Amino acid sequence: MKHTDRRERPAGRFAYEGLERVLHEKARLGILSSLVANPEGLVFTDLKELCSLTDGNLNRHMQVLQDAGLIEVRKWRHGRRPQTLVRLTGEGRERFLEYINLLEQIVSQTLDAAEGNAAKKSAPRRNTGWSPA
Amino acid sequence: MKHTDRRERPAGRFAYEGLERVLHEKARLGILSSLVANPEGLVFTDLKELCSLTDGNLNRHMQVLQDAGLIEVRKWRHGRRPQTLVRLTGEGRERFLEYINLLEQIVSQTLDAAEGNAAKKSAPRRNTGWSPA
Repeated sequence: MKHTDRRERPAGRFAYEGLERVLHEKARLGILSSLVANPEGLVFTDLKELCSLTDGNLNRHMQVLQDAGLIEVRKWRHGRRPQTLVRLTGEGRERFLEYINLLEQIVSQTLDAAEGNAAKKSAPRRNTGWSPA
Repeated sequence: MKHTDRRERPAGRFAYEGLERVLHEKARLGILSSLVANPEGLVFTDLKELCSLTDGNLNRHMQVLQDAGLIEVRKWRHGRRPQTLVRLTGEGRERFLEYINLLEQIVSQTLDAAEGNAAKKSAPRRNTGWSPA
C-alpha cells in the first residue's frame, strides 16, 4: 500500500460535481436518452414502454424533469382519448448533452486508469499489506 | 409529431437494466473510480478528500459497497492512530468495469442519436404540433 501522492490526486478529483442528480438518476437517464433520440417528442405510452416504467413512475420522473425545466409536456384529446406528448426543451437538450460529455470523460479516464494498472500487474510488486497475517 | 415506429424502438430499449444502482449512484461512482485508479488501496482520509465526502457519507457508501461485495476494508493501528485501508475486490473491479463499458455504449448511442437529429434539422420539417395555437 502506498500513500496518496497529492500532486497526482488533487482533492475532489473524483467528486464529479457536474453529474447533476436530476439527470444522473437511472430512470431519468433513460427518459432523456429516449427524448434526445426523438426530438419531435414521444407520446406517454411509447415513452413508458421504451423505458420499461409504470405510469406512476414515469409521471413522477416527468414531474422532476419538468420542474427542472428539462422537458415540456403537452396534453390534448385524440377523439375521446387524452394524449400526452413529451419532449426535451432547448435547455434540457443542452444540459443533457453536457452531462453525457462529462460521462464520456469519466468513462475514458476510468478505462485508461484500469488499463494502466493492468499493464503494471506484470511488473514486480511491493508487499501491499493485504496478504493474510 | 410522429408516433413511435416500434420496429426501430423496441420496448425497454432505454430501460438500462444493467446500470446497477449500487454502482451508478454519484458518490459511489466516484469512490469506485478512485479505487480502480489505485488498485493497491487508498486510506480513508485520502479517499474522502478525492471524492469530497464527509466522514459520515463515505462510511455510509462504504457500507453499501462492502455489503455488495465490491470493496474490502482493512483496519489497523499506525502508532496510536487507527488507519482504514479500502480497496476493490476482484468481483468489484469486474462488475465496475462492466458497468463502465455499459455507460460507454449509452454515451456513444446518445451522442450518435443527438448528432443524427442535429443533421436532420437543416431538412424541411413537418408541423410538429408544438407551435403556439
